[in-house]
Amino acid sequence: PFGCHCQGWVRSFRPQKQNLFLHVNDGSSLKSLQVIAPAAMNDPLLGFGCAVEVRGILKKSPHSKQPVELEAEQIWVIGECNPVDFPFKIKERHSLEYIRQFLHLRCRTNAFSSLLRIRSEATAAVHSYFKNNGFLLVHTPTITSNDCEGAGELFQVEPPGTTFANEGSFFSVPVYLTVSGQLHLEVMSGAFPRVYTFGPTFRAENSQSRRHLAEFFMVEAEISFTESIEDLTKVWKSAFALTLLISWMELFHVRCPITYTEAIDILKRSSETFTFPTDWGCDLMTEHEKFLVKHCGNIPVFVTDYPHDLKPFYARDNQDHPKHTAAAVDLLVPGVGELSGGSLREERLDLLRSRLGECGLEDTYSWYLDLRRFGSVPHGGFGLGFERYLQCILGVDNIKDVIPFPRFSHSCLL
Amino acid sequence: PFGCHCQGWVRSFRPQKQNLFLHVNDGSSLKSLQVIAPAAMNDPLLGFGCAVEVRGILKKSPHSKQPVELEAEQIWVIGECNPVDFPFKIKERHSLEYIRQFLHLRCRTNAFSSLLRIRSEATAAVHSYFKNNGFLLVHTPTITSNDCEGAGELFQVEPPGTTFANEGSFFSVPVYLTVSGQLHLEVMSGAFPRVYTFGPTFRAENSQSRRHLAEFFMVEAEISFTESIEDLTKVWKSAFALTLLISWMELFHVRCPITYTEAIDILKRSSETFTFPTDWGCDLMTEHEKFLVKHCGNIPVFVTDYPHDLKPFYARDNQDHPKHTAAAVDLLVPGVGELSGGSLREERLDLLRSRLGECGLEDTYSWYLDLRRFGSVPHGGFGLGFERYLQCILGVDNIKDVIPFPRFSHSCLL
Repeated sequence: PFGCHCQGWVRSFRPQKQNLFLHVNDGSSLKSLQVIAPAAMNDPLLGFGCAVEVRGILKKSPHSKQPVELEAEQIWVIGECNPVDFPFKIKERHSLEYIRQFLHLRCRTNAFSSLLRIRSEATAAVHSYFKNNGFLLVHTPTITSNDCEGAGELFQVEPPGTTFANEGSFFSVPVYLTVSGQLHLEVMSGAFPRVYTFGPTFRAENSQSRRHLAEFFMVEAEISFTESIEDLTKVWKSAFALTLLISWMELFHVRCPITYTEAIDILKRSSETFTFPTDWGCDLMTEHEKFLVKHCGNIPVFVTDYPHDLKPFYARDNQDHPKHTAAAVDLLVPGVGELSGGSLREERLDLLRSRLGECGLEDTYSWYLDLRRFGSVPHGGFGLGFERYLQCILGVDNIKDVIPFPRFSHSCLL
Repeated sequence: PFGCHCQGWVRSFRPQKQNLFLHVNDGSSLKSLQVIAPAAMNDPLLGFGCAVEVRGILKKSPHSKQPVELEAEQIWVIGECNPVDFPFKIKERHSLEYIRQFLHLRCRTNAFSSLLRIRSEATAAVHSYFKNNGFLLVHTPTITSNDCEGAGELFQVEPPGTTFANEGSFFSVPVYLTVSGQLHLEVMSGAFPRVYTFGPTFRAENSQSRRHLAEFFMVEAEISFTESIEDLTKVWKSAFALTLLISWMELFHVRCPITYTEAIDILKRSSETFTFPTDWGCDLMTEHEKFLVKHCGNIPVFVTDYPHDLKPFYARDNQDHPKHTAAAVDLLVPGVGELSGGSLREERLDLLRSRLGECGLEDTYSWYLDLRRFGSVPHGGFGLGFERYLQCILGVDNIKDVIPFPRFSHSCLL
């Protein structure tokens, strides 16, 4: 037994005839410290949710439920908590949907504080994997004048009251929130063999789904001197396996890649009725992806070599025929479908130039062509949505419950 | 001597009568590997800036300049580099201003690749300091409906073509790029004793100065159960000292705080002529900050207890008089001036409510008042501009040279 001073929040409160029993949580783990105090120490302000400071003697507990308990000599209520107004009630098990209504208070629940601890540890695990494997961290920009995917769903940025005209605007050009740090990482692939980035990414997707956010975190890596899909998926697999906090053994047994063409064959031969077409050249939809994962034994599957015309200008041309494909890969996982995507990048100046020419983008991406003009190397990379990854390893149904402050269409609280 | 295979970029090239001498850099450090090849291996495509693969025998070098060198048996040029078009020239020492014009290529210079390595290591050091000291990493949002500083200089966000009217907009409310994660960290201070965030932050400041960016990184920390400025500056000092990569001994000897009132006395008693007034109640300007740092012996100085009216609503009221101050602190450093700022936060519900009421913000910040309604604890925190910190420890004059892709008024390249 020794003297102890503890600070935290009351997670349970049982006043009994002779003694008060409190559980005080200091945020360091799900477990709280049991505090016992003589009934005379009761205080009308003492109760569920309030902040306390306790001084006393830490002793071996007579009960098997906890190894130690704190015999209080003094209890101070630092911050009270009115049980009528406080939206979380003692002993009630609130649903994730319910606590999500109170973004500013939900970290005080057991469920969400645990999630935040896991998210913090998972972030550290990502950084430590890449650092230990020779990757340089690059802070790719949030505001960009690129439009990486060549698609819509962008957010534009300006000081309020400014018109989005080219002239007179803050940056003199229209600027957007980044949808991917890939092109900026590729800049670095001309001097560093392994680079990565980990930060917020944005899509103005008008979706309320359980899998979409307007602001989400993405881990992206780019590897130079890489000439094959196999080289790429090797790093990819180990990055995801080693950063796992929860043993998700299937990932270690991740299936050898199947090609898009094989995938189409599997879909065509199946007796399943699909809503979307399964002809060669059509994009794989969520229904197809889920079927493929199930077909392969409900384990993560890499699908490679998609039709060239489905992929963006930077995907490396396989120069095959009659079926013209690109060296692009998606990682499909049980429950979620597409978790992660990547490709070898077109490092050959002439091929890239003619592709950009076809899209009318040669001038816009002249800087990107420069990367191939000067000391170009074969390279490739992949990106992973961090929230979907957390959903996946934790089995959390709604993506809004794995990020501290979710942003989605018609919602940006705080 | 043993067989060796290396990949990288040619940083110097000297063809001599019998031998070729190359320096090949693989991005892992400033040092390159010296490669020696018989003159017969010369290739018109081999030259400064090109990407190569070399196979050969690694041997102890006869010269003292390098411990080992690679005797090439074969050299492949992976990506050529036309010396006429390439903006960097062999043997020329280009200025940081010059290389800054080529944001997509400057990582191929010795100066900027070194900066990127240091930035990556400094980021890891920040994370490891906070992790090792019990801080939880919180991903505070980039898009927010708050306006933390209550001031202008915000960027607004919307899909292109949307009007910024409240109704019909993407989020249903006007949203901005974050200027600080502080209020979101304070949410977490109600369940975790130590939290921090490290990510991009934004100011629509119309400045082309050597010290301002529109997008910059900020480290912010928030500590619960903290009742004094001294508790706060203790963590602050050790965070900054321990994350230093370059020994900057002065920081260890950081001066005991001086109060704002003492600072004003020093300024008033000095013989210096200032452009801005030095009356009690006036904000300290850069000229004042620089003078104070010099006056204290050119070492970092904490200035505490600023006039209450100069500080935002969340700064803790010292309730002193006749001079009414708040428990706010700035860290001033040589060369840069203000590097970092922080405060104790007003944790007392009644005082915070009346302050918000005076500003007409009681409704807007009712969620923030909730944090004080339920289990409020005394807490405080600080924020540090990461780029200014790098400028400071590395002696880099222009802030645009310590970030991969600088964004400032009239410039958002790539």
